[in-house]
Amino acid sequence: MPIIVALDAMGGDHGPKVVVPAALAALALYPQLSIILVGDDAIIRSFLRRKTYDPKRLSIHPSTQVVAMDEAPAQALRTKKDSSMRVMLNLVKQGQAHACVSAGNTGALLATARFVLKTLAGVDRPALIGLMPTIVDRKTMVRVLDLGANIESTPEHLFQFAVMGHIVASAIDGVKNPRIALLNIGEEEIKGNETIKKAAALFLKQKAFNYIGFIEANDLYMGKADVIVCDGFIGNIALKSSEGTAKMIMQFFKQTFSSSWLLRLALPLLLPSLSKIKKYFDPARYNGASFLGLNGIVIKSHGNADLKAFKTAIAQALLQAEQAVPQQIASQVESILTQMHQPKSLLEN
Amino acid sequence: MPIIVALDAMGGDHGPKVVVPAALAALALYPQLSIILVGDDAIIRSFLRRKTYDPKRLSIHPSTQVVAMDEAPAQALRTKKDSSMRVMLNLVKQGQAHACVSAGNTGALLATARFVLKTLAGVDRPALIGLMPTIVDRKTMVRVLDLGANIESTPEHLFQFAVMGHIVASAIDGVKNPRIALLNIGEEEIKGNETIKKAAALFLKQKAFNYIGFIEANDLYMGKADVIVCDGFIGNIALKSSEGTAKMIMQFFKQTFSSSWLLRLALPLLLPSLSKIKKYFDPARYNGASFLGLNGIVIKSHGNADLKAFKTAIAQALLQAEQAVPQQIASQVESILTQMHQPKSLLEN
Repeated sequence: MPIIVALDAMGGDHGPKVVVPAALAALALYPQLSIILVGDDAIIRSFLRRKTYDPKRLSIHPSTQVVAMDEAPAQALRTKKDSSMRVMLNLVKQGQAHACVSAGNTGALLATARFVLKTLAGVDRPALIGLMPTIVDRKTMVRVLDLGANIESTPEHLFQFAVMGHIVASAIDGVKNPRIALLNIGEEEIKGNETIKKAAALFLKQKAFNYIGFIEANDLYMGKADVIVCDGFIGNIALKSSEGTAKMIMQFFKQTFSSSWLLRLALPLLLPSLSKIKKYFDPARYNGASFLGLNGIVIKSHGNADLKAFKTAIAQALLQAEQAVPQQIASQVESILTQMHQPKSLLEN
Repeated sequence: MPIIVALDAMGGDHGPKVVVPAALAALALYPQLSIILVGDDAIIRSFLRRKTYDPKRLSIHPSTQVVAMDEAPAQALRTKKDSSMRVMLNLVKQGQAHACVSAGNTGALLATARFVLKTLAGVDRPALIGLMPTIVDRKTMVRVLDLGANIESTPEHLFQFAVMGHIVASAIDGVKNPRIALLNIGEEEIKGNETIKKAAALFLKQKAFNYIGFIEANDLYMGKADVIVCDGFIGNIALKSSEGTAKMIMQFFKQTFSSSWLLRLALPLLLPSLSKIKKYFDPARYNGASFLGLNGIVIKSHGNADLKAFKTAIAQALLQAEQAVPQQIASQVESILTQMHQPKSLLEN
């Protein structure tokens, strides 16, 4: 059975200039994939001109509006009912696509996805989950959620995030019995705020996933856990602090290289090693954060993703559709809720 | 007038092995400095043996207990009344020292310092302030507070942190009219939780410091602000995420270098540039976070600081004593409170 992925062709910093060639590259790579490009028909056609593709596997679904990258989510929701983003989500809702990918405005994508697709039964809040490198080796990665879908979370929300992270790490990343940790400001049990302490108490009482305790932010990339759970504010700060640090270090290496004639001279010899390093941190390898907990698969590509990075996000959509991630989350959450009665009552025991 | 700095000779991962030689090095460097070493008399003496120093500028104040690095702060406060840490703080309290430095247990240091020294009038909570590198150049740094003295903060606490950060950036770092930003998950005014929005409203209403708006965590090290204010949980996550990222990147560079015979061969040629990079990120340059808002100067050295890093922390103590930072904070906070009546009432206007 073909897997149909709808793409927001107008979203992101580059729009169809990146999305259309990425779609063609993904079609060439995955024979089971079909793609619907959503957006301005004429513009999309102009990017398809003189390209060869199978029209049975690639179609255009026209839409007339575009959500701006800096538009307020509530306004996009109210006034952009024919945006490429909204129409793409409608295709998932109506069962015409199995999954969708947008590089557009994150807040608008979340608000619109929640409105159009609704959350799964038993899930109160969707969460944004990302994939990050670790120090262990090139293949060992770590899942972190929530990266910013919510500003504040209750212990029950964090519990649901853990269940969803468990499913993604198992089904998508192929990790057996993934180790799940709570991000905290100390490893000791006495540390942290009330929400985190209560979440830890909930995590300890269940058997649905492998909870290994608190983890500190300096251990995010040490490979000590497979899934790290935190609220969206903290997740956003952790992710962006890491990005800022990486940028500063890389910039400093560049400056050092360009200011030393010796290094400039040696550059051709160093290139293979440097490209290996670059590859390791290549955002293309990590692109495709996803919103979990919705009645449908929604992948969020980086706004400035290039062809290769956007292709990675499409692959992520394909994998989640093949693994039926939302269905797995729904059934797992249901079975845990039944097994535990109501998570809320646990807090009172 | 000599400046007297008391040192917790037993604190940190290395204790007197690092503290005593760092004290001697600092005495050689700063003629206006005198030092009191607090801790086990016999052990300290053994590290002073065969060293030359001026006994008028270096004395030992004996104490019999040591706070363990993993001891619960409340327990240290209750049971370690003769610890090197506690006695050091008493010396500041009694006016026998102008400032103090400890590489010991951070939580215990904070709890004991609050208990012994009390907070300044007009300051509700002490905050931990750090100094970090920026992408701009080797000299441009950024102050971030709170790095973990508090788990949760009200808008008024964040306001007080901003005032204290303003004073440190002006008086210690020599920044004129320092740009003060609030760490948030977006730059737009609508972003963030209620605490941050209310803090922003408070910041906008005053003229005591130069508030420039929200900053995102990926801009922490971009040199866009001189002081970045956040609550202690967020600050801890930002700092430790950065440390974790830097560690991962450096580790990967090391692996790449050691796995390539070409790079190993070229290493002697590359060393000057590499050591420049290492120097840039040398923790010794940034060591000496300080607790602000107390009736006394308390510098927190990294637990694993080496001689050079501990000397940097002593220099930080000396500078803060010379600039009378607590007195400046007290008078500035008082004048702002008078000027603004009560910050709390601002929220209601």
